[in-house]
Amino acid sequence: MSTVGKTIRCKAAVAWGPAQPLSIEEIEVAPPKKGEVRIKILATGVCHTDAFTLSGKDPEGVFPIILGHEGGGIVESIGEEVTTVQPGDHVIPLYIPECRTCKFCKSGKTNLCSIVRATQGRGLLPDETTRFTCKVLLEISVAKINPHAPFDKACLLGCGITTGFGAAIKTADVQPNSTVAVFGCGGVGLSVIQGAVARNASKIIAVDLNPKKFEYAKKLGATDFVNPADFEKPIQEVLIEMTDGGLDYTFDCTGNTSVMRAALEACHKGWGQSIIIGVAGAGEEISTRPLQLVTGRVWKGSAFGGIKGRSELPGIVDDYLNKKLEVDLYITHKFKLEEINKAFELMHDGDW
Amino acid sequence: MSTVGKTIRCKAAVAWGPAQPLSIEEIEVAPPKKGEVRIKILATGVCHTDAFTLSGKDPEGVFPIILGHEGGGIVESIGEEVTTVQPGDHVIPLYIPECRTCKFCKSGKTNLCSIVRATQGRGLLPDETTRFTCKVLLEISVAKINPHAPFDKACLLGCGITTGFGAAIKTADVQPNSTVAVFGCGGVGLSVIQGAVARNASKIIAVDLNPKKFEYAKKLGATDFVNPADFEKPIQEVLIEMTDGGLDYTFDCTGNTSVMRAALEACHKGWGQSIIIGVAGAGEEISTRPLQLVTGRVWKGSAFGGIKGRSELPGIVDDYLNKKLEVDLYITHKFKLEEINKAFELMHDGDW
Repeated sequence: MSTVGKTIRCKAAVAWGPAQPLSIEEIEVAPPKKGEVRIKILATGVCHTDAFTLSGKDPEGVFPIILGHEGGGIVESIGEEVTTVQPGDHVIPLYIPECRTCKFCKSGKTNLCSIVRATQGRGLLPDETTRFTCKVLLEISVAKINPHAPFDKACLLGCGITTGFGAAIKTADVQPNSTVAVFGCGGVGLSVIQGAVARNASKIIAVDLNPKKFEYAKKLGATDFVNPADFEKPIQEVLIEMTDGGLDYTFDCTGNTSVMRAALEACHKGWGQSIIIGVAGAGEEISTRPLQLVTGRVWKGSAFGGIKGRSELPGIVDDYLNKKLEVDLYITHKFKLEEINKAFELMHDGDW
Repeated sequence: MSTVGKTIRCKAAVAWGPAQPLSIEEIEVAPPKKGEVRIKILATGVCHTDAFTLSGKDPEGVFPIILGHEGGGIVESIGEEVTTVQPGDHVIPLYIPECRTCKFCKSGKTNLCSIVRATQGRGLLPDETTRFTCKVLLEISVAKINPHAPFDKACLLGCGITTGFGAAIKTADVQPNSTVAVFGCGGVGLSVIQGAVARNASKIIAVDLNPKKFEYAKKLGATDFVNPADFEKPIQEVLIEMTDGGLDYTFDCTGNTSVMRAALEACHKGWGQSIIIGVAGAGEEISTRPLQLVTGRVWKGSAFGGIKGRSELPGIVDDYLNKKLEVDLYITHKFKLEEINKAFELMHDGDW
């Protein structure tokens, strides 16, 4: 029996309030309106940003909320005037859409489409209403992908892996034979390493306080491994000595503002670039001496790796299918929806 | 009677100690050694960096010292193995040399030649000795220029004007039809404006607390004029409203770390670049929320506008001679050497 045009019922993990376990509920999802798409989500990753919102510290978090922004699924039905996807298409939902008509999209310089930003933080669609946003999306917030990609892998390309990989190949545009340091070797940092390998960097230094992470970093192509706890002097000095003056590119994948500073200051004078990927706590600030910039270092950052969701994400999914991008290694556990709180617990544990 | 190979005597304005008036003394200058060049300095500008060193606050300042790094003159004699200049050549002394052999010069990415850096701060040549460094320079620290350029104008291209102009055309690489804001409209800021005009920026906003500076900014091509004292809200908010979301490029020419932050935060989300040119006080730091960078703003800086002294400064002198670059307007006063303390007093006054 077709569900098109009808309100449907489905299961969702609902966060009723800050720092409470998620509760599996049956919810109603209204049909998609003009320019909207209703998706059957088949898999999702859990991300530290979900945990941040759940903690109650995210100034944009509103409760109750259905978390999740690293998913994969199949288009169930579409609203009026939707032309780029149709029922049955395999898609990845985008937390940054790509409308192709706003000032940002037309600039050719950024992936930060502005269309949904005003209402996104309140969990609403641009018309200020909701059809349960985690399931009904704007057409511009959907990337149609190769149907051969398994959802339980491809969902990770909707956030973490693409964020790190894109930061290396697009935001930093890592050049061959260059040197790279990656601060924080979780899912995002490991993906920066993959990007640096894809660009033939000659030295890729993995930096983490948890040496268990180095095993994965090594598998993905990191060449050197540094645990700041092994040194008395600041980590930027250690890295500058290791690299004859500093690194060509450094990446913060921790969200820790002190690490962001160390990453900048570990860059080579004259041309080193430091890219901030991690999300800092509300109100936290980065700082450094301005001479660091006057002497040629560049401080920048990106969201979702600078990748345009509809234009570029399908190609990254193809890279995965063509074995140019490792995804399977990232999957340490799989849980049913009912076990989602366990997924958050393990993520906080950090050891995997 | 030739002075070649002999110690010569000449006049110099000597700073004997912090915050004391300069004293005109007769000094001895030894002949140039291998790779060195002795120059008859015929004109020099005074720069806030000289005043900073004279104040005693510059951690690299050592006394007694002969200040001045914005000069012009004629090669008087050369040491052994000097091949690129000869006696009689018109030159501008470089505070950043260009050896063309060190890692930095060979990188093609920066003008920060590393050769003299280790001893420069102590007022010594690389062999750890001095022949009074303000008059005897390494060959690599000399830019040979068109002999038709008058020294009393061309000397300003040895620091201030080139620093601002280069920051616009090289460090920022300002693009046609873009929007620019310049914080601080002294000699450096006015030169950023000239660079933005040369690149056909569509809007050039001059920002200064002293409205007298706007007269010069307007003559050089600024299109809008903003005095932060006229507004209650932060200047970055004023500028963002004026420019439908922020500027494509901003430049700090003040050395004030709060202004550096405002300049960054006045940039457009997604692509705005902020360039730090001003020199902050010892130990002062810049800061901002990392989200400013994660959402696509770039924070960078440069010294001497990123211009390579021997390769590129002669072309800027030619630009001046070809009337592509305004220099005469900058000259508000001329003094004889004996009146140099008056020059510093007027510079501090700031009104011109």
